[in-house]
Amino acid sequence: MSERIWTAALVVIGDEILSGRTVDKNVTQLASWLNVQGIRLAEVRIVPDVQSAIVEAVNALRIRNDYLFTTGGIGPTHDDITVDAIAAALQVPVVVHPEAREALDAYYASRGGLTEARLRMARVPEGADLIPNRMSGAPGIRYGNIFILAGVPHIAAGMLDALTGTLEGGLPVLSRTVGAWVAESEIADLLRETEKAYEGVSIGSYPFFREGRVGANFVVRATDQALLDACADALTAALAEQGRAPVAGGI
Amino acid sequence: MSERIWTAALVVIGDEILSGRTVDKNVTQLASWLNVQGIRLAEVRIVPDVQSAIVEAVNALRIRNDYLFTTGGIGPTHDDITVDAIAAALQVPVVVHPEAREALDAYYASRGGLTEARLRMARVPEGADLIPNRMSGAPGIRYGNIFILAGVPHIAAGMLDALTGTLEGGLPVLSRTVGAWVAESEIADLLRETEKAYEGVSIGSYPFFREGRVGANFVVRATDQALLDACADALTAALAEQGRAPVAGGI
Repeated sequence: MSERIWTAALVVIGDEILSGRTVDKNVTQLASWLNVQGIRLAEVRIVPDVQSAIVEAVNALRIRNDYLFTTGGIGPTHDDITVDAIAAALQVPVVVHPEAREALDAYYASRGGLTEARLRMARVPEGADLIPNRMSGAPGIRYGNIFILAGVPHIAAGMLDALTGTLEGGLPVLSRTVGAWVAESEIADLLRETEKAYEGVSIGSYPFFREGRVGANFVVRATDQALLDACADALTAALAEQGRAPVAGGI
Repeated sequence: MSERIWTAALVVIGDEILSGRTVDKNVTQLASWLNVQGIRLAEVRIVPDVQSAIVEAVNALRIRNDYLFTTGGIGPTHDDITVDAIAAALQVPVVVHPEAREALDAYYASRGGLTEARLRMARVPEGADLIPNRMSGAPGIRYGNIFILAGVPHIAAGMLDALTGTLEGGLPVLSRTVGAWVAESEIADLLRETEKAYEGVSIGSYPFFREGRVGANFVVRATDQALLDACADALTAALAEQGRAPVAGGI
């Protein structure tokens, strides 16, 4: 029963997230994509556009996870330092990737040509492979277990799409949400005991305030469908037995 | 001219963020609040509901920043382990705070009384002070430079509100956004040179695709208003000189 759990970490690189100017969308997007691949997002760090901060985060996380993703900082401008920082973390030189150069050449042929600034987007840590980008000119980059993605969410999504099915993972985490009109503090014991009774299941409790009433969603998670259903059904029955009104449609 | 820069870090505690189920709103909310206090959000870590992960993040970040905030995991259920984890990080025992107990007693007087599960929300690392919570019963917690906030964004917002003006900070970072209908790769040199010409200013470049056209916002940041204006005006003039159409209203 003890299966291998595959994990990934994400380093979000961007002053714009830390300043509050831009709301990150890549954490949720990557987490959902990883779930389908049978990989768990284990930790996220959001760091500024500062080389030492990127190096520290990348080196800490790439070693203790099966996969490491980064988003942001791969464009043509002076604040795009991700490739240099990751190459420094890996202690390898930065080189121009011939296929990336070709892709950029083709993309910019009708857009004013490949300038020096644009050629920056063909730079990779030596030994890296490319991740296709069908949205714009600059490809993503793969180096070992590191995946360097764009920061713009729809471009990152395209790169993830290109990676779908190519990463080894374990069993996807399945979940069921049981909602009830109850203050979570009233059924804390029930939750704890139910989780304990079903080994391999975790239950998260997320309160909400809606229509002037207090309720909570209990998210039951497991990799085994039968186990998940048994636990979620038991929780649902126990809540009904206590006279707690279910929230229609779970969430 | 070299002023002291005050920094803060945030540890977001929550399986629900890492699973992709819930979109975090506390990063943006805290970042914006900190800006007004003259404090910069320097790093964020999102960690699961696992004590060792919380301990590691808290101990790494509380030392190298002026302030450390956490969000999430202070409710009454079994998955709320933030207080125990932070007490473990600080190597102090967990005790029931008398004022927190009183506040919970008052809050739950008309709601079924103070059960053992609810009393969990009065537990604090020994020596901690409370942060008022006007939305619900459980207070936030302050211990030294650590601020333990709720995960539910509007409750966290109320706690931040209670802290407004109480933390020492430096000069707020001011910003102006200059938008233009131009591919950022076409003016990468201009951006780099402009930033270099105005010491103390940083320029971030954020491309977008809208109305079928490529554009970018250039966010100019500085703590000095005159310096900020000089740089933003110079950038605006240089873009106009190159015939780049401005984006109405900046953003």
